[in-house]
Amino acid sequence: MFQTFTVSSDPAAIPGRVKRLRALLAEHELAAVLVPRGDEHQGEYVAPSAERLKWLTGFSGSAGLAVVGKRHAAVFVDGRYTVQVRAECDADIFDFPGLARTALKGWLTSKLKRGDVIGFDPQLHTVAEIRRLEAALAPSGLTLKPTARNLIDRIWGSERPAAPMAPVVSHPMKYAGKSVDAKISAVQKALAEAGHDAVVLTQPDSICWLFNMRGHDVAHNPIALCFAVVPAKGTPELFIAEAKVTREAKAHLEGHVKISAPGALKTRLAALRKAKAQVRLDPERTSFGIAKALGKSAVEGSDPCIPLKAVKNTAEIKGSRAAHVRDGAAVSRFLSWLDRTIADGTTVDEITAVRELEAARAATQQLKEISFDTISGSGPNGAIVHYRVTEATNRKLKQGELFLLDSGAQYLDGTTDITRTVAVGTPSAAMREHFTLVLKGHIAIATARFPKGTRGIDLDPYARRALWDHGLDYDHGTGHGVGAYLSVHEGPQSISRAGSATIEPGMIISNEPGYYKEGAYGIRIENLILVTPSEKPQGGEREMMAFETLTLVPIDRRLIDKELLTKDEIAWINNYHARVREEIGPEMGPEHKMWLETATAPI
Amino acid sequence: MFQTFTVSSDPAAIPGRVKRLRALLAEHELAAVLVPRGDEHQGEYVAPSAERLKWLTGFSGSAGLAVVGKRHAAVFVDGRYTVQVRAECDADIFDFPGLARTALKGWLTSKLKRGDVIGFDPQLHTVAEIRRLEAALAPSGLTLKPTARNLIDRIWGSERPAAPMAPVVSHPMKYAGKSVDAKISAVQKALAEAGHDAVVLTQPDSICWLFNMRGHDVAHNPIALCFAVVPAKGTPELFIAEAKVTREAKAHLEGHVKISAPGALKTRLAALRKAKAQVRLDPERTSFGIAKALGKSAVEGSDPCIPLKAVKNTAEIKGSRAAHVRDGAAVSRFLSWLDRTIADGTTVDEITAVRELEAARAATQQLKEISFDTISGSGPNGAIVHYRVTEATNRKLKQGELFLLDSGAQYLDGTTDITRTVAVGTPSAAMREHFTLVLKGHIAIATARFPKGTRGIDLDPYARRALWDHGLDYDHGTGHGVGAYLSVHEGPQSISRAGSATIEPGMIISNEPGYYKEGAYGIRIENLILVTPSEKPQGGEREMMAFETLTLVPIDRRLIDKELLTKDEIAWINNYHARVREEIGPEMGPEHKMWLETATAPI
Repeated sequence: MFQTFTVSSDPAAIPGRVKRLRALLAEHELAAVLVPRGDEHQGEYVAPSAERLKWLTGFSGSAGLAVVGKRHAAVFVDGRYTVQVRAECDADIFDFPGLARTALKGWLTSKLKRGDVIGFDPQLHTVAEIRRLEAALAPSGLTLKPTARNLIDRIWGSERPAAPMAPVVSHPMKYAGKSVDAKISAVQKALAEAGHDAVVLTQPDSICWLFNMRGHDVAHNPIALCFAVVPAKGTPELFIAEAKVTREAKAHLEGHVKISAPGALKTRLAALRKAKAQVRLDPERTSFGIAKALGKSAVEGSDPCIPLKAVKNTAEIKGSRAAHVRDGAAVSRFLSWLDRTIADGTTVDEITAVRELEAARAATQQLKEISFDTISGSGPNGAIVHYRVTEATNRKLKQGELFLLDSGAQYLDGTTDITRTVAVGTPSAAMREHFTLVLKGHIAIATARFPKGTRGIDLDPYARRALWDHGLDYDHGTGHGVGAYLSVHEGPQSISRAGSATIEPGMIISNEPGYYKEGAYGIRIENLILVTPSEKPQGGEREMMAFETLTLVPIDRRLIDKELLTKDEIAWINNYHARVREEIGPEMGPEHKMWLETATAPI
Repeated sequence: MFQTFTVSSDPAAIPGRVKRLRALLAEHELAAVLVPRGDEHQGEYVAPSAERLKWLTGFSGSAGLAVVGKRHAAVFVDGRYTVQVRAECDADIFDFPGLARTALKGWLTSKLKRGDVIGFDPQLHTVAEIRRLEAALAPSGLTLKPTARNLIDRIWGSERPAAPMAPVVSHPMKYAGKSVDAKISAVQKALAEAGHDAVVLTQPDSICWLFNMRGHDVAHNPIALCFAVVPAKGTPELFIAEAKVTREAKAHLEGHVKISAPGALKTRLAALRKAKAQVRLDPERTSFGIAKALGKSAVEGSDPCIPLKAVKNTAEIKGSRAAHVRDGAAVSRFLSWLDRTIADGTTVDEITAVRELEAARAATQQLKEISFDTISGSGPNGAIVHYRVTEATNRKLKQGELFLLDSGAQYLDGTTDITRTVAVGTPSAAMREHFTLVLKGHIAIATARFPKGTRGIDLDPYARRALWDHGLDYDHGTGHGVGAYLSVHEGPQSISRAGSATIEPGMIISNEPGYYKEGAYGIRIENLILVTPSEKPQGGEREMMAFETLTLVPIDRRLIDKELLTKDEIAWINNYHARVREEIGPEMGPEHKMWLETATAPI
């Protein structure tokens, strides 16, 4: 549960590993091999046993792809990791050409020659990914070839960590709110309507949602790594290592779900193919290997669990509200401690802050996990959007600077995700102006009312207008979907330039506009918001939706420039703070009462 | 130039026409035939000789499709025309199943049987349209077959109007701003970059823009119906009836463009195919017939003129500003006349208003055409978004009602499009509230500042927020692109839910939020706006864009509820009116000076 702050890597071992991989290339008559970061499930977090990219290259980021050829090698990463990849990887061995989507084709065609064959593990790449790459490389005479076994695993050998075997438990109805049978029926209805005979589920969070179960195979996400096949009629089959399924979980699944060993998936797919069944798979989320096993039985579609999971039911909403009172009090106790500690003149650094915040959450005795590695950035580190503090970058909180803290928790009743930016000492006028502009964007989203059919794409500019008016902006989306004791990043909804999914009542989304002054400070204000039907205003004609803010933690009043706010915006912040005081006050403990009074006083 | 108000149709003739068409079906062994509204160029306006849908069915709307089978027939129209189609077409002959995109497949499969063949004119349907329909019908065993000659034309015979032969003239450099050679070079550069050998241009406004020429073959758009082929190197070829090209235009094109007869296009396409050239065509805008003639030489892409044409050059911008002063004064003189006439107690009806407005514009002595049929809707007629007044629907302007007037003009130096909603007598509080909410949306767009890469989709919600806050909305986009003495509807940009094209400095767009109370009144406030680089505000970091409002006509102060406006919004309206007064004042004439003073006084 606790975050670690050192990057374990063994730079001296890298050249030997690359050399052994090259020997395998020759043996397999391959000109190069792809080494992606993802595992069989394409998730954000992978188990240590699947950290092939890191083991081979030293790169520890959450997204990337290496290509190793006979003489050349490269690591492709996105804009978040351009600095980090150079710090972690040996430039004598690897090129860093940029983003795979834009630079991979050029690099491959410049380093390889017509007729060359590039190997890949068919379980680690999606159908869509391989199809795009094949089309891009075809004019240059380069072809892709699936390898029978993963080449990295062959050289990793006994050093490779064991696959995760965390226990799987049931997720109680009290929190799940909908029975396994009811969820299966909803999925089967979707399949029947589309005329499909079955669907292959490859996303662990979809499967854990569907079967009301939770696991702990990867960091921060309470999921079990597994696959499932749900037929349009009859009993679904769950493919999972039997050792992981507790007796309790077995009893829970009994009669609803057939449990099979992971290896049985192949047999099941072959049987579906033989029966000429129409089997749905999501080409952006399903491996090339699974699609190939299905052959002509594969029909492209979307994971039917995703839209169902996104809309939270009454129990999940009730749980999320309770989780947010608990989490809001914990974060507020931490912020109270931080203010007092800084005022006392005691030094606090980014790592101390992460530990203290985790301790505040653990003190609730209900914390299962943090929901992602905390972003704890003081001063200029706050301006690095995807900053992760390490022992090497750890920085003290200094007077006259800002401190940005983005964190979250996993409780049985809900997942949280909150960012607060606080003043250390006295903030400058520019800091207050920038903070207030971000706050205006945050309030614009929080107070939005919008009709049926509205997509996240339609609301994103609300969060930016105050910044745009001042010639400023931020280079990330405004909000992502959040699961119910599941992944902190969940689709299909998002508030962003790409947010094409419609927003529906019951969805939980983050509201997190920001502003980043490179080399100086970062500002982000993030609350989770719940989509609700809106009451009809006087004279209103259409069914509208609105947001209920779930997160309950004071927004730093010292950073608000009241002159920049409208009357309605001032009313929003004062009402929000009154609500925070009322809801988390009873949970705060006597030593933090005064802090809460001050932090939530009207502006 | 002047609008007509009667719908010419001959209901008694329809059954005989359908009968004759059915006889032809038998002769051609077809189970049904498609009769689309579009012509070979897929434009909004078609010449009388191409009004096949209207001639066959009586339906006079601007979009639709008929299908005639041996026993059944149907007219498919979109939501705008569901009432009109029932009024104009005989329900004993035709079904009205709804929108072609959603209802065509179901209707065809229910009326026809496996193995049936449906005929279509390959010149009147786009490649993409036929491809979509073929895919939709394939599972039902229905196939499509191009007919050698249009079946309607065969039965229309000598009654059919002659093809339009309006004279083509050059568009002077003073207004066009860029030479034909420079434009051809830009198109050829785009082709070379894409590795294409040529492009087939099928959009008359693209061709007229490219060759700096104008015609008058269809209503309201100063275009000549023609095709062109532009090779990546060498001289473009224009396919046009020679009789249309004036001596002046011939001299203008000489040495830059080869002029050929329309029939020569077929030969040219065959030659390109034989030479295995890579010829670009836009599948959503190019006929199935042209694509078929190119065979494997056809490469799908977009019309390269569209993005170039959308960004106006200095001369076009200067021209548009001048056109807007002239047009603003004309519209304002009309509004002054209207107020005085109503105050005098003289009856004004919707048609009188259209005629008077046209006369005011004609009095400038520079009016070439109106840019579309004026929407002149009093009271409840204003709530019909695509209302066109006819002698049958003509309605008097009545005290206590609103009057909505959406109109535009074509001048050599620019195209205009403006909507004003005015109070007749004393407006109700609800009318003023709704008008002010629409005005807030209009101002939100007019004052927007936004970064590079912003798309119309990103700005559309700005125009709706004030309405959404009150549970209201409007069911049309907020803005469309506008040409420079060309089409009043021009892509690729639009401010709407579908506006995925990025907005670039130099584009002209309409800003026209609205509100429609069915059975009571319609409100729309429309100005044209020019995208400009924005000055950098103090502390600004990014390159931003903004809008300059081009349209210069008072917005009815009697309908503004000042209490609902912010300080900044009040400042905008007062500044706008001061600018209107200053810029059009000198053009107004002494009898309208006092009206302008009152209409533009600060609120």
